[in-house]
Amino acid sequence: MKRIKAHKSFGGVTEFYQHPSTQTKTKMKFSVFRPERIEDITGGLIWLSGLTCNEENFITKAGSQKIASKLGLAIICPDTSPRGLDLAGEHDSYDFGSGAGFYVDATTQGYADHYKMYSYINSELYDLVNQEFHLDGNISIFGHSMGGHGALTIGLKNPNKYKSISAFSPITNPINCSWGQKNLKGYLGEIKKNWEPYDACSLISSGKNHPNKILIHQGLADEFYPEQLLTKNFEEKCHQSGQALEVSFQEDYDHSYYFISTFIEDHINHHAKFLVKD
Amino acid sequence: MKRIKAHKSFGGVTEFYQHPSTQTKTKMKFSVFRPERIEDITGGLIWLSGLTCNEENFITKAGSQKIASKLGLAIICPDTSPRGLDLAGEHDSYDFGSGAGFYVDATTQGYADHYKMYSYINSELYDLVNQEFHLDGNISIFGHSMGGHGALTIGLKNPNKYKSISAFSPITNPINCSWGQKNLKGYLGEIKKNWEPYDACSLISSGKNHPNKILIHQGLADEFYPEQLLTKNFEEKCHQSGQALEVSFQEDYDHSYYFISTFIEDHINHHAKFLVKD
Repeated sequence: MKRIKAHKSFGGVTEFYQHPSTQTKTKMKFSVFRPERIEDITGGLIWLSGLTCNEENFITKAGSQKIASKLGLAIICPDTSPRGLDLAGEHDSYDFGSGAGFYVDATTQGYADHYKMYSYINSELYDLVNQEFHLDGNISIFGHSMGGHGALTIGLKNPNKYKSISAFSPITNPINCSWGQKNLKGYLGEIKKNWEPYDACSLISSGKNHPNKILIHQGLADEFYPEQLLTKNFEEKCHQSGQALEVSFQEDYDHSYYFISTFIEDHINHHAKFLVKD
Repeated sequence: MKRIKAHKSFGGVTEFYQHPSTQTKTKMKFSVFRPERIEDITGGLIWLSGLTCNEENFITKAGSQKIASKLGLAIICPDTSPRGLDLAGEHDSYDFGSGAGFYVDATTQGYADHYKMYSYINSELYDLVNQEFHLDGNISIFGHSMGGHGALTIGLKNPNKYKSISAFSPITNPINCSWGQKNLKGYLGEIKKNWEPYDACSLISSGKNHPNKILIHQGLADEFYPEQLLTKNFEEKCHQSGQALEVSFQEDYDHSYYFISTFIEDHINHHAKFLVKD
């Protein structure tokens, strides 16, 4: 991997990396905030961003550096899709294709060759940052909206790889909302059975779970709540299955980074309980 | 003034306003973070942004809301120039014209009709926010780079209107750097005598001062230091004149918002000493 930018921040460093990906067969970018010295890193947090975002949004807007610096955590923020391609329909809308990889391994024509965001995050990026930043598998996952969906589904399918899971305004039941249906059909085809491994509610119903409590923050003035996010469905599934879950509904808060920045410290502190070595 | 967007943040609200300006003869925009209830506001801070910025940069990237919320402060972030015009040369470069008003009252052809950013900030916006947010003149000023220049020059010329002044990476002596020369010539013409009221070093030399200590943070890995910023010149002038000044040089920090966000709490706490009512 190649460091393309670095900015001293909060005693640590905010960096941008690029690397050739075997999963996407493109160059992929991610940002990192971390303590300056690798040996001071106590754990890693992978942040998955939402629709239209890239590796920059979270690290410039969420205000995560101060608390991460205090706790010695590295925060890793990958881009949300392959870039530099020109697949059929890839750049036609904000909610499919570029900027909207949906954290699945695509099987449809054209996309199957590059849109492997599930494996990119869960295998390739995971292994890369685990090794480069000496994380010893001391890694958790969180995200926002489409990235909240990514964090829930990737975390629930790989509870041994992620110490904890949290999300802001996640798409919890994509099978049943228009954002999810558009993406799952576009990347996986018409057969709905194939969508279930990428649906947090279906995963919980099928018996997947995580040993540690999942934390969700959801704004009640969110312009996509409840239609696209279906938070109550996820609450119900977790309740039925016994999955520990805390959903913190917040009056007047919307879907934006102003909401995320307000509660980011709570999320990072939540993960730190499971990550930070004594 | 018309509120065009609002986002609940840190228990308060981040807002965007638009209003017709008599100074610029255009619609001007600014953002605000403030406590939800006007009666909870303890003071106001006007933030002036740097080259290429608009009313969004600071409020999305600086991470100022948490501490401002705690202290009950309103932070007001105006755009950096008039918009929607098409003056000769206005959009040709990043460092003159749109996004680069330089906080002067222009006298040159075309610009004289609209580029009145000094009076816009110091009179029109000042009066507007003072009234709308019930600030009772309990107002301070700070900024970054070109906006640091704006904060120093506006604050030094109006010490009774601003309780305190601070800056990140300010252009302290624009008469003697290429950014400054380009702007001062473009907005004020060739006669250098006319530039001096917009040069912080010249203002100090001419006897202007502020009763409270000026705080400056300057990164030593700043790509524009020292050439464009000439911080040492300002230190020297303040030392000679007896102006209280603290310049905090920070090793490895650059000119970016990663630097600003790291030290924003120090600046807001500095102003709060002079602003927050007991």
